[in-house]
Amino acid sequence: MSHNTFGHLFRVTTFGESHGVALGCVVDGCPPGLALEAEEIQAELDRRKPGQSRFTTQRREPDQVKILSGVFADDRTGGRQLTTGTPIALMIENTDQRSKDYSEIRDSYRPGHADYAYDAKYGIRDYRGGGRSSARETAARVAAGAIARKVLPGVTIRAALVQMGPHAVDRANWDWDEVGRNPFFCPDAKAAALYETYLDEIRKDGSSIGAVIEVVAEGVPVGLGAPVYGKLDADLAAAMMSINAVKGVEIGDGFASAALRGEDNADEMRASNDGRPSFLANHAGGVLGGISTGQPVVVRFAVKPTSSILTPRRTVTRDNRDVDLITKGRHDPCVGIRAVPVAEAMMACVLADHYLRHRGQVGEPVRGA
Amino acid sequence: MSHNTFGHLFRVTTFGESHGVALGCVVDGCPPGLALEAEEIQAELDRRKPGQSRFTTQRREPDQVKILSGVFADDRTGGRQLTTGTPIALMIENTDQRSKDYSEIRDSYRPGHADYAYDAKYGIRDYRGGGRSSARETAARVAAGAIARKVLPGVTIRAALVQMGPHAVDRANWDWDEVGRNPFFCPDAKAAALYETYLDEIRKDGSSIGAVIEVVAEGVPVGLGAPVYGKLDADLAAAMMSINAVKGVEIGDGFASAALRGEDNADEMRASNDGRPSFLANHAGGVLGGISTGQPVVVRFAVKPTSSILTPRRTVTRDNRDVDLITKGRHDPCVGIRAVPVAEAMMACVLADHYLRHRGQVGEPVRGA
Amino acid sequence: MSHNTFGHLFRVTTFGESHGVALGCVVDGCPPGLALEAEEIQAELDRRKPGQSRFTTQRREPDQVKILSGVFADDRTGGRQLTTGTPIALMIENTDQRSKDYSEIRDSYRPGHADYAYDAKYGIRDYRGGGRSSARETAARVAAGAIARKVLPGVTIRAALVQMGPHAVDRANWDWDEVGRNPFFCPDAKAAALYETYLDEIRKDGSSIGAVIEVVAEGVPVGLGAPVYGKLDADLAAAMMSINAVKGVEIGDGFASAALRGEDNADEMRASNDGRPSFLANHAGGVLGGISTGQPVVVRFAVKPTSSILTPRRTVTRDNRDVDLITKGRHDPCVGIRAVPVAEAMMACVLADHYLRHRGQVGEPVRGA
Amino acid sequence: MSHNTFGHLFRVTTFGESHGVALGCVVDGCPPGLALEAEEIQAELDRRKPGQSRFTTQRREPDQVKILSGVFADDRTGGRQLTTGTPIALMIENTDQRSKDYSEIRDSYRPGHADYAYDAKYGIRDYRGGGRSSARETAARVAAGAIARKVLPGVTIRAALVQMGPHAVDRANWDWDEVGRNPFFCPDAKAAALYETYLDEIRKDGSSIGAVIEVVAEGVPVGLGAPVYGKLDADLAAAMMSINAVKGVEIGDGFASAALRGEDNADEMRASNDGRPSFLANHAGGVLGGISTGQPVVVRFAVKPTSSILTPRRTVTRDNRDVDLITKGRHDPCVGIRAVPVAEAMMACVLADHYLRHRGQVGEPVRGA
Repeated sequence: MSHNTFGHLFRVTTFGESHGVALGCVVDGCPPGLALEAEEIQAELDRRKPGQSRFTTQRREPDQVKILSGVFADDRTGGRQLTTGTPIALMIENTDQRSKDYSEIRDSYRPGHADYAYDAKYGIRDYRGGGRSSARETAARVAAGAIARKVLPGVTIRAALVQMGPHAVDRANWDWDEVGRNPFFCPDAKAAALYETYLDEIRKDGSSIGAVIEVVAEGVPVGLGAPVYGKLDADLAAAMMSINAVKGVEIGDGFASAALRGEDNADEMRASNDGRPSFLANHAGGVLGGISTGQPVVVRFAVKPTSSILTPRRTVTRDNRDVDLITKGRHDPCVGIRAVPVAEAMMACVLADHYLRHRGQVGEPVRGA
Repeated sequence: MSHNTFGHLFRVTTFGESHGVALGCVVDGCPPGLALEAEEIQAELDRRKPGQSRFTTQRREPDQVKILSGVFADDRTGGRQLTTGTPIALMIENTDQRSKDYSEIRDSYRPGHADYAYDAKYGIRDYRGGGRSSARETAARVAAGAIARKVLPGVTIRAALVQMGPHAVDRANWDWDEVGRNPFFCPDAKAAALYETYLDEIRKDGSSIGAVIEVVAEGVPVGLGAPVYGKLDADLAAAMMSINAVKGVEIGDGFASAALRGEDNADEMRASNDGRPSFLANHAGGVLGGISTGQPVVVRFAVKPTSSILTPRRTVTRDNRDVDLITKGRHDPCVGIRAVPVAEAMMACVLADHYLRHRGQVGEPVRGA
Repeated sequence: MSHNTFGHLFRVTTFGESHGVALGCVVDGCPPGLALEAEEIQAELDRRKPGQSRFTTQRREPDQVKILSGVFADDRTGGRQLTTGTPIALMIENTDQRSKDYSEIRDSYRPGHADYAYDAKYGIRDYRGGGRSSARETAARVAAGAIARKVLPGVTIRAALVQMGPHAVDRANWDWDEVGRNPFFCPDAKAAALYETYLDEIRKDGSSIGAVIEVVAEGVPVGLGAPVYGKLDADLAAAMMSINAVKGVEIGDGFASAALRGEDNADEMRASNDGRPSFLANHAGGVLGGISTGQPVVVRFAVKPTSSILTPRRTVTRDNRDVDLITKGRHDPCVGIRAVPVAEAMMACVLADHYLRHRGQVGEPVRGA
Repeated sequence: MSHNTFGHLFRVTTFGESHGVALGCVVDGCPPGLALEAEEIQAELDRRKPGQSRFTTQRREPDQVKILSGVFADDRTGGRQLTTGTPIALMIENTDQRSKDYSEIRDSYRPGHADYAYDAKYGIRDYRGGGRSSARETAARVAAGAIARKVLPGVTIRAALVQMGPHAVDRANWDWDEVGRNPFFCPDAKAAALYETYLDEIRKDGSSIGAVIEVVAEGVPVGLGAPVYGKLDADLAAAMMSINAVKGVEIGDGFASAALRGEDNADEMRASNDGRPSFLANHAGGVLGGISTGQPVVVRFAVKPTSSILTPRRTVTRDNRDVDLITKGRHDPCVGIRAVPVAEAMMACVLADHYLRHRGQVGEPVRGA
């Protein structure tokens, strides 16, 4: 991961600020010949789009994606638009650049926000809507993720919100279909109902709350990951930690494994008919020694509460004066909600990259070779 | 992070298997003119060295490091050996390559270990002592970390074991000096006493146990980290997750921040005399928006229990037969203990890399420019 | 250099096809605080723009550049637009996507062109106007180069066409001002007059011709370049060779140095008042051991003749049939001409990248550190 | 290319100084399962070894290579030693570190040598034998190249010296077998005889002379290379330019193509029975649009004369005083000779890397997927 690019063979470079002209990404290294229409990318973006319920920011952006390059359709391919192996540039124009008064965050640093850090590093910052540090950048990731999914046939990637504030879901109630039915991407209908009440209170208080997201990839090929510094889990950890407001990442049993004894943590195996071991448990979360085992890859991460809140907090100004700051504006009371599709996208991008890397190092001889 | 290299400007490439001829690393991009003696690196290695108490593997390796390149001493520098800006290669020869019987792990996959994943990926694996997947590789990291520390004047990096199995330390008892006095790198003398009894039992049971390590860097310059895919915390997450047996990483409050409200999570600030904000809390763990704030950088990670245990576990052989496996040999009952100096090394390497990258992008004009 | 990105700290990723929606680039790692207006980039693009004389392609593209991100202006900076340290995305929309008949190059491979290679590699190719292999991609490089120049205060980068076909310029007539006065970027007025007649003949014949370009950077700081695989001259060689149709690159005396004896090749030095050696010659072209010496950096490269010509050539179709091909359309009779501003841009980008890398490894301590 | 590493999937990191403890390399990303013995690497090293004739340096180094990691032999593989997919570290210990008097080059800068540039960049330099800037580093490349060849079944890579000083070989006399019969790697027996006399004179004069080397790869798969900044020819240009003393690189017709007309430069094609075009010429040197065409890849590069000569040259000291310098010691009168095996190694490494990258992006689905 290097400044604004991640991945080695499937490489994604994103650009754009919250209130700039446009944001987007360049996806480099995508294999040729994959069918790709803007509508498919749009469908993923729509899941992340703000303003879909009262529980996310009321900023209204259509988030309409445009493919600028890297695809081609002609009659030989039956008019289907295919990737060509060249870089795929995607652009989302910013339309809701409300000319509001930013004087407060222009001159003061929101506690818990990147304001101070950006100013200290760069000496300048586009403060409008958080600029580059805004979660709006994640729209570009979701767009890239829609392409990454196509590189991975047979792999299913799904994410869900599994904890809001102190309230975790009941895994006995887990239903993936439920995720699409509530505004929280919550897999437990009962918990979703609770979240509705709970988050309304948080909103009324002008406060915000943290969350935990779980993302699961099924059908992942055995062998992805490159020890020891290109481990699949290390790359996943970086990918998730790079999402705005994330403060912790775990694979499989994660922090709980610290309390386990060796015999409880071992994912035992039995022989199976397909010649591969059949695992009897998945404490490892599908990754051993940094390499995928063929079991579901399971990642969880914690999102801190939005730092832009209505409760006054003590802070300082750019010119080093004490102030008390209230952040008005349209903010997500639980920014973890919209991190769910972002998590899927990051999982897809990391897996696509490792799939191509794996094929590079150990694949079958190529055509023409 | 790419296969066996990590870092961009301060780059570390490690090599070597547990029972091969030698292991080591090449440190590329180290600034010139830093005094460096093998003894200094050795001192760090000795902290990680196996066989120092009954609580770590009884393998006896002197782990003697040799500097092969990248340093130079002549009379003009008063005979002091200095780095020259060229790659510093370090080598540790393996001396205790006991010719033991590896037939069991040669043909069977230890549950919870990388055995199966390596075979599935590469079709071949040096099974002796775990080969490349052995924690022995971390000796090379510790050696690299000793150099990284020199790149960071004024930065103090310390780590400690803060939880073993279910037993966490009492933070009220925290004493950094205590870390060096017990074989667990534990900062709480009372907890250390408990760990002694507890781990003896684990050992007697032929079992193993997980742990949590915390690493803290103080005196970190403001501004390190490169959003959005070279975030300091994302790189730290990858670095820690790349350590053997690590299953979770968190920064600052980490997973606990999921349960926090915005007003509780905000690290409030007040003006200070030196012109920089003075923080009133450090929930963020010293990183906001992926950039260091000047506060202590605080990272914690969970280590799962060693998978090589004496309790028989169900598994399969390479040729897909069911077996029950007991792993004899010299294994750490709590591999988390020796992860403590490794954690410091990884923190040092990541900070050194980001320090050089930061200087590259926003530094003062260079001499000769 | 990796697929569509080059540079380490000053990184440029380009995208776009000749007849796609748009082309452009993302410039990542640019230092913050540099004044940057679209007009400045436009001025460079206008030098490369097609259709400015009868000696370049008659395709008419305004090549209007738009800055999508990475800059910010507010009243605190007196309304001046400054770089912010975040990625700068530039876009040039394609307007002249003439709906012409591409059936010939769609089905047949132009000899000497990338047509066959792309099809063989990717199995698909956007054949319209050459797609990604079109020199149109270099517009994005010129745009990036305009930004790179700002990273290098005090450095002057100029290029000129020094040979067309068999006709070299007379170095005794060299006048940098002349470069802007003729349509060939030729520094020798007499040669320029000759080129006019010569190229008219080539055009009338429906043929094309090769050229040699020289690019010179003056005021380059001492010390840029990172031996041994990040040598300044190695990176320059890759950068120039990556320009369309380039077949050879040389630094300083280049191939002529093969015929030199040691005493003739040595760039002797004398002491100077500023404490640095004064060089008495520059056979080395400003680079020794891969590191800049402070002398002018001198690079030359050869451009082959455009492969799209009106003379029929023997070739094959996609389905492996023999055909004779004539390439109609609007092509540069000497594609080397428009390579001149591209050469300057590549020189600027490579120097900017090495400047930042150098500052990273050996610079002064940064503010806040 | 980044400091001391090159390649993306087949990555080579070299280390070591001329008179340090050891030099070597780490080869990362080599596919598993390739038979590899130290003897095979040694055979390549012996071709480059100094002191084999009176025409190369009289330094006597056995250049004995040791494999430190990345290979494994057990009875299951019939005792054959195979690569395992983990990093292969190679070490060559320096044995002839003659404790001579280096005071002259310690304090004075050899004109045409990297002495001044290193001091200006790093402020310190291991001056013994040229330190890191010595061509001795290329031994590590030759070792890595021996491994790279194994990644490329069916590819033949050969190089030859085709010009010494003003004397080019006669291509009518070209005989690859002759290359191994004379101390110049010259493919023309007549020219080799001339070189013997010519170089004896140069030596007697205490002078040195430049050369041109040509390297040819046959059997290269179609499709290697990744436009537009990972072009095969761009990477080859960087690879060759990174070799000590190289000042120019060309592909196919190279600089001669500047004087060609389009119809003469076109490599015409005819249909062939194997479904692929049959080329009627190879002006392009096997690369079009940065992608291999299946024709032989042909690269030439110019090597300047050794800068260490016995003729006194004007220069300055570290403390800025004028001196006249004679460089005694054991130097190659034509450093181009020993660049021949190095050229083959670099070609092999670049092709191996692009082969793996190509397989990654467009290869067949992998086992286990």
